[in-house]
Amino acid sequence: MADTMRAVDIEGGKGPASALFINPSVPKPKPTATECLVRVKAFGLNRADTLQRQGSYPPLPGVTNILGLEFSGVVEDAGNRVEKGEQGTPLWEVGDEVFGLLYGGGYAEYVVIDKRMLIRKPKAWSWEYAAGLCEIWFTALQALYLVGDYDPKRMRSILWHAGASSVSIAGIQLSRNAHLSADSHQPATTTTTTTTTTTTTTPNPPPSPPKVFATSRTDAKCSFCVERLHCTAAVNTNHPNWVEVIKTQNDGSGIDLVIDFVGASYFQSNLDVLAQDGRVVILGLMGGSILPEKVNIAPLLRKRARVEGSTLRSRDLEYQIRLRDLFEEKVMPGLMDGTYEHHTEKVFDWKDIKLAHEMMERNETKGKLICVINST
Amino acid sequence: MADTMRAVDIEGGKGPASALFINPSVPKPKPTATECLVRVKAFGLNRADTLQRQGSYPPLPGVTNILGLEFSGVVEDAGNRVEKGEQGTPLWEVGDEVFGLLYGGGYAEYVVIDKRMLIRKPKAWSWEYAAGLCEIWFTALQALYLVGDYDPKRMRSILWHAGASSVSIAGIQLSRNAHLSADSHQPATTTTTTTTTTTTTTPNPPPSPPKVFATSRTDAKCSFCVERLHCTAAVNTNHPNWVEVIKTQNDGSGIDLVIDFVGASYFQSNLDVLAQDGRVVILGLMGGSILPEKVNIAPLLRKRARVEGSTLRSRDLEYQIRLRDLFEEKVMPGLMDGTYEHHTEKVFDWKDIKLAHEMMERNETKGKLICVINST
Repeated sequence: MADTMRAVDIEGGKGPASALFINPSVPKPKPTATECLVRVKAFGLNRADTLQRQGSYPPLPGVTNILGLEFSGVVEDAGNRVEKGEQGTPLWEVGDEVFGLLYGGGYAEYVVIDKRMLIRKPKAWSWEYAAGLCEIWFTALQALYLVGDYDPKRMRSILWHAGASSVSIAGIQLSRNAHLSADSHQPATTTTTTTTTTTTTTPNPPPSPPKVFATSRTDAKCSFCVERLHCTAAVNTNHPNWVEVIKTQNDGSGIDLVIDFVGASYFQSNLDVLAQDGRVVILGLMGGSILPEKVNIAPLLRKRARVEGSTLRSRDLEYQIRLRDLFEEKVMPGLMDGTYEHHTEKVFDWKDIKLAHEMMERNETKGKLICVINST
Repeated sequence: MADTMRAVDIEGGKGPASALFINPSVPKPKPTATECLVRVKAFGLNRADTLQRQGSYPPLPGVTNILGLEFSGVVEDAGNRVEKGEQGTPLWEVGDEVFGLLYGGGYAEYVVIDKRMLIRKPKAWSWEYAAGLCEIWFTALQALYLVGDYDPKRMRSILWHAGASSVSIAGIQLSRNAHLSADSHQPATTTTTTTTTTTTTTPNPPPSPPKVFATSRTDAKCSFCVERLHCTAAVNTNHPNWVEVIKTQNDGSGIDLVIDFVGASYFQSNLDVLAQDGRVVILGLMGGSILPEKVNIAPLLRKRARVEGSTLRSRDLEYQIRLRDLFEEKVMPGLMDGTYEHHTEKVFDWKDIKLAHEMMERNETKGKLICVINST
């Protein structure tokens, strides 16, 4: 095996999309005992990649400088200790088709990745489809389950801001099914009654689905959220009193869980739209980080509200493995049986990486941008 | 038994301290099957009482209008179903000496209270001592354990604002011992090693105590926090850069858990002083609820921080029972063996309730104000 590979590089270490090029001779990564080496077939693009390219979002310490947070490919080296069948250890062999989330390095012919982070790619899925799943769905899972701590008994309403964004499209689909068990799409709890003559399993009154709301800044996207994603209602945040509009649609009640990417400009409205014991999960600051004047935090106390921020890339390996396992449990069955939709917007040859980054930076895309690696 | 009792009442329904009087003929409460009737010996005063007296903090729906959130007394009627020895049900009998937290009604000769909320008063404790424990210690327990979700492995530093206030004095004492098990004041975890010849129980490396910090607005109170309460450091928040002073005292690191009563004016500093994955628990808004200009919430995301508000009185019975059980487990042994100190500032005859409220409103007191009920 050669010790070098091709990988996307940046002229001068950082710069505009035009600085990207394929470097023909980059050191090939070597797997440790707990990692696999995977030959990359396709990788997904993320906004974080463009920020990292510009030098404003450096990789975590110890992580390769090569861009790329998600990929699909074929296991080329399963590491020097394959614990076959060892409890809790996924079993990977050379030739296995896989995909996964990375701390970096996906824009390359080869990646190394912890064995526990790999996910087996169903044969029916294309490389480009599998390469674009992790960032979107892991982020939505994190917001709903690990930070939002979704509880079907207590949380009866969920609001996703930026409802037509990729993460919210995934999150809205997850939310609408969050009251169902993972694999069967049946209510999660049943009661077993034993009498002297028969044992019957009676489903408890099935938990009704949570009401799922969305916001957007255009009426067209609001219609998309209601008609295509089946939200209870979607509200244009240009409406001066959108908080009250949502509460009215929620039978006069506040919202139990709000997932936000906008930040400062929605901070007050998020507090105002919450129900008692409600929670706001902030995943982005697209509307800036400086709060406007006269924000009133009284609802924090009165509602016993929680506001919590999070990001995906900063999370340690154990946390990301929990998300990987949640993805396998809660998302894959729905993607397989058509309950969940996932949309790839455009596929590029990786030699056109400049065009792909330029397209992402024009903010014209709704779905996922993918590059495939032509191995010749 | 007479159907009426004496209780503190307010001329005109609400008003100044001078409007308080002892009404000789108020309906005596009747216990339900799950409640006890207790003859009150003493009750504690709280700032919430003065707000309720003024009409600005009405009792929860269904709760008596009589003031008073904590008391001590003697069980007069243990209800019509005393489940003797039934699992999890405290066993109360007529004559038992008890104390507890109330949703209201403590300023009276009799109170009714859920049996699961009662706490047995040690014989050695005076009525006035027992009557003033619950509000302070339950609030500190809630902040540290139920909202703050204190975890000795992950949380190595705790900051109590208003360090010389009653709740913070309790909270600082709890925090300094939070790494120890409840009853033995020994490290909570041990490892048992069995060899062929001997079985030895080896304590794990004992978790070191968390560093406990305090703030105050006077140097004298800061000295009190360090010298009497043994805080690692206490910082005067009039210092223009108190956040950096605390971090320096914490070996350059941020704080894992901040408990705040001030609110708006400390909001930015709280975000700034936090460590990665740090949490702010807001229990009060003594510094107002309107944030100053230019608050920057970027640390919420970057630190994956959590900000959560809470109050004690709004909590439902099940939640308050959890606090009652935590009090019995984590506080009473320390009060009994002298690990924890609790300070009563002044005891009044309840006939002097006007003077007591006036003293509270002058903000001159540090410790607890108590009224004893003279039964003649």
